[in-house]
Amino acid sequence: MIEQLEQHFSTQRPQHLEQFKQLLRIPSVSTQSVHKNDIIQAATFLADHLRTIGFEHVELLATSGNPIVYADWLHAPDKPTITVYGHYDVQPAEPFELWHTPPFEPDIRDELVYARGASDDKGQVFLHLKAFEALLATTGKLPVNIKFCLEGEEEVGSGGIIDFLAEHSERFAADIVVVSDTGMLGPNQPAICYGLRGLIGMQLDVKGPKQDFHSGSMGGVIQNPIHALVELLSTMHDASGKITIDGFYDDVRPISEQERAAFARLPVTDEDTIEESGVPELFGEAGYTSLERGWTRPTLEINGIYGGYEGEGAKTVLPSEAHAKITCRLVPDQDPARITALIHEHVKHHTPKGVTISLTNTEAGAPGYVAAFDHPAIQVAERAFAQAYNAPTYFTRMGGSIPIVEVFARLLKVPVVMIGFALPTCNAHAPNESFALENFDKGVRTLCYYWLGLAEAL
Amino acid sequence: MIEQLEQHFSTQRPQHLEQFKQLLRIPSVSTQSVHKNDIIQAATFLADHLRTIGFEHVELLATSGNPIVYADWLHAPDKPTITVYGHYDVQPAEPFELWHTPPFEPDIRDELVYARGASDDKGQVFLHLKAFEALLATTGKLPVNIKFCLEGEEEVGSGGIIDFLAEHSERFAADIVVVSDTGMLGPNQPAICYGLRGLIGMQLDVKGPKQDFHSGSMGGVIQNPIHALVELLSTMHDASGKITIDGFYDDVRPISEQERAAFARLPVTDEDTIEESGVPELFGEAGYTSLERGWTRPTLEINGIYGGYEGEGAKTVLPSEAHAKITCRLVPDQDPARITALIHEHVKHHTPKGVTISLTNTEAGAPGYVAAFDHPAIQVAERAFAQAYNAPTYFTRMGGSIPIVEVFARLLKVPVVMIGFALPTCNAHAPNESFALENFDKGVRTLCYYWLGLAEAL
Repeated sequence: MIEQLEQHFSTQRPQHLEQFKQLLRIPSVSTQSVHKNDIIQAATFLADHLRTIGFEHVELLATSGNPIVYADWLHAPDKPTITVYGHYDVQPAEPFELWHTPPFEPDIRDELVYARGASDDKGQVFLHLKAFEALLATTGKLPVNIKFCLEGEEEVGSGGIIDFLAEHSERFAADIVVVSDTGMLGPNQPAICYGLRGLIGMQLDVKGPKQDFHSGSMGGVIQNPIHALVELLSTMHDASGKITIDGFYDDVRPISEQERAAFARLPVTDEDTIEESGVPELFGEAGYTSLERGWTRPTLEINGIYGGYEGEGAKTVLPSEAHAKITCRLVPDQDPARITALIHEHVKHHTPKGVTISLTNTEAGAPGYVAAFDHPAIQVAERAFAQAYNAPTYFTRMGGSIPIVEVFARLLKVPVVMIGFALPTCNAHAPNESFALENFDKGVRTLCYYWLGLAEAL
Repeated sequence: MIEQLEQHFSTQRPQHLEQFKQLLRIPSVSTQSVHKNDIIQAATFLADHLRTIGFEHVELLATSGNPIVYADWLHAPDKPTITVYGHYDVQPAEPFELWHTPPFEPDIRDELVYARGASDDKGQVFLHLKAFEALLATTGKLPVNIKFCLEGEEEVGSGGIIDFLAEHSERFAADIVVVSDTGMLGPNQPAICYGLRGLIGMQLDVKGPKQDFHSGSMGGVIQNPIHALVELLSTMHDASGKITIDGFYDDVRPISEQERAAFARLPVTDEDTIEESGVPELFGEAGYTSLERGWTRPTLEINGIYGGYEGEGAKTVLPSEAHAKITCRLVPDQDPARITALIHEHVKHHTPKGVTISLTNTEAGAPGYVAAFDHPAIQVAERAFAQAYNAPTYFTRMGGSIPIVEVFARLLKVPVVMIGFALPTCNAHAPNESFALENFDKGVRTLCYYWLGLAEAL
């Protein structure tokens, strides 16, 4: 059967790449309302494709936000049922001018597919479709029962699916959930992620005078909203990068010595991170390695700041408003609601004089997550990777957030296995996002081996 | 003769307003290179107009920057010669969406002419043209000798004219210089400004990682350029608004008790400023009234700040760069070069870890200026205002900067008289800039009385 699969993948490859490009051309940016129709188009594309390759009960489930693409294949009696999760929405592509080729016109060069969403998460979703298609085409059936769950709001906090699951979690009842939205440690270094950081987000708006003023006439006379914003934001970190919101670290689960030692054995060095990021030096909370900081310590990050004149040259204006966008990465056992409340409290106590401040929550809060990595479903994944990549598999955590992972684990009460194929250099959330063709090819094979192995192991 | 002037102004008024609108329609924004042709168009419009009303030797003088419009009328032997200064460039009109009517489509409503440049400074330049036209049309001559000097870079630091004057100051040799780029204290409250603040400007650029990163993968691992910018900017003021750059106040000329008392007698209260600006409370350096702060104390103002995501919703990005635009208003006797050096020194000593900082000077530095207000040329101005407005004239200083005033005074070694007709509510440098028709009418008369009076007094 492996031979049949190999032949299928090699003959179908050009067509698969063409289909992948079609999916990538749809600018399904969930955070920008102008792309509302593109969201529906991406969901419809996937629903049609699932129908074509042999899935049943394909439908777009309405939610409080964007629809969930549902599909199933449930003809493997006595075999486990797996819910496969991914997302079809993408991050905004701004700043457009930094892309070498347009973000929604996929371009293949140097063995990489460049496009917004190539790695996060359309590429990974697409691999699942192609793996199931291959198994159905070559054997006429799947070795396990599958329910597809593809959401369209991962990049804005997964509000719709979280609401849906709160009411209808039985729809996705399964023995395990497989989430493909994570990455490898490096080229040919497969990894299984067993921990994630959570996320909360807010927008800080500072209002000063009723309109922009000439900085000559009002400068020194009234508070400048940018000064007030800078003063307020500067109270949130100390010079070492530690967060200075009262109580912020209270519930943080400390990293164990065992886990520290395991991180230290991973083939990732500070030098790698310096080279990847291009910074003069790493920076952050004292007493932790950069892997420990990125995977097990919380952050309070200003993702955007703006106010006054940004154009060419100078403009001597004292602006009416200034703004900042903030997100926090949370770790187990920080409670999103409590941390949100602490930040509101902090802002209330540090509001500068002469302006009014408004702080609005913009992200459905999600807690951090860690799983046991000795579960059979995770061990099978390790073997599937080894078979496809002929390389050892690493166990990692991740600094990013997939809120739905913690929700699945909590509501379905089953293990969540994260199998991902993005590279650290893939530029997720940044200009020139890419997905490696090597992982396109080895990824579909890994997934086929995984389903075949899982049918025996569970 | 007064009767002839009155008749001239009332019959010609509709035509004058039409011509004024033509001038306002030219978007001569000096800070944006896209408006380079509009700059030339505005200069040409004024040159043509000066030629039409009877001025001679009209030409565009080439400078290191935008041209100076020169014109003269020198047929009053034994009478004083006056250089009349104004500028034909304007501030950027952004943010466009806050204008009730488009900034370059002049609109008259409620006795105000709305357009970018209406008050600063096209309206004031235009009044001079119309006053001279009236005198020439009704009497066939001018009571004094006049040299016109209209520049096109006032809003970007007057670099071209300053360079030109350094080489060719004799071209504008005169007994006094009259500058019309200032304002009145309020409706029917004419004012003569005898002091200005100076200006320096710089751009602060913070560079972190080589590109934008996912805030999940790099958050907490490397320095966020926005955090670094906020940390650095927060070291420049204390919570009371006092500037904390070492040595910044060293050379500031203290306000005299006599001047303090004079300010206190002006019909301007803190309540007026609160109402005009719409802030919850005034804010600034302790120990000074708001007039004292605005006219005699220096500032360090962030005119713009930007970095990361500014769009709708959230984007979990750790950006590659962050930026701020800074200007300082200087007062006598602060030296622009020394203050610039102190800020560079401060930034060098407060550069946060993990980023690189670049600080670029963006404005030709100009010192502050104060004049003696007992000079006959200023006393004549007081009487001219009184005659046109039938109201007392106030002596004021100004928080804004007209770098050329100090340059004229220093190079030509003559008094500079500032006669201006803008209102505090005119929204210079802000959306919905306007010029009051009342001052359009009384302004031309004031100027006629001034030239007639000056011919007798000097």
